[in-house]
Amino acid sequence: MPVAIELTRIITKDLDAEQVIYLKEVGGTRGFPMLIGEFEAKTIERRVKGFVPPRPMTHDLIVSIVEHLGGELQDVVITELKDQTYYARLRIRHNGELIAVDCRPSDAIAVSLCCNPRLPLYIEEDVLNDVMRYQQ
Amino acid sequence: MPVAIELTRIITKDLDAEQVIYLKEVGGTRGFPMLIGEFEAKTIERRVKGFVPPRPMTHDLIVSIVEHLGGELQDVVITELKDQTYYARLRIRHNGELIAVDCRPSDAIAVSLCCNPRLPLYIEEDVLNDVMRYQQ
Repeated sequence: MPVAIELTRIITKDLDAEQVIYLKEVGGTRGFPMLIGEFEAKTIERRVKGFVPPRPMTHDLIVSIVEHLGGELQDVVITELKDQTYYARLRIRHNGELIAVDCRPSDAIAVSLCCNPRLPLYIEEDVLNDVMRYQQ
Repeated sequence: MPVAIELTRIITKDLDAEQVIYLKEVGGTRGFPMLIGEFEAKTIERRVKGFVPPRPMTHDLIVSIVEHLGGELQDVVITELKDQTYYARLRIRHNGELIAVDCRPSDAIAVSLCCNPRLPLYIEEDVLNDVMRYQQ
């Protein structure tokens, strides 16, 4: 059963290739940090701050392509943690089917923030349990 | 009538937000530089050098989403130059229709390089004529 999560914090440092975001269970206390790339972190930070770029950026293009092809972005699910790397799926409703596209969580979260309203974020319960165990 | 073009050069500088790529008419002499963002430049440079990232990156995700939604990426057309800004369309064949999605040329070129074989690149003849006039 996936657990709803939300983005609670972003820490970006100019000279680091890896940046940190924090995700937390909605209405709960379990939370965890995730290292992500510089570009995705910048995109996420700008969107959280309400900055709308003058031109559609890469993650906006993803939203636009899905719409042009008749799909409807539904949500983001973090599905796996393996060798300290998170894996996610961007789920799209298309012709009555639910299509899950494998991607990096950072891309999926950036896409979620380019949608209005934002896409819900989830993490699989067993992945969250694993994450919490590693943190102890 | 669109003119086929190709990417001939990329100049990336670590501390610049704007990078330069050069595009040239296939089998011709007309060419021009284009300023693009740092992230797209890095993606383009890596792909041109044959570097395949261990995980699918943002532009690979675009290719994957198009495939999952039953589309087929066809080509990239640079359609406009306005106030020193280039505009492009990523063209996708879907259910027998040709769908053109507005985007930045840098994103479209990065997507083209994530495809195997690479997508052909074009520029509208009148846009190329304008560009050449500005360079004189």
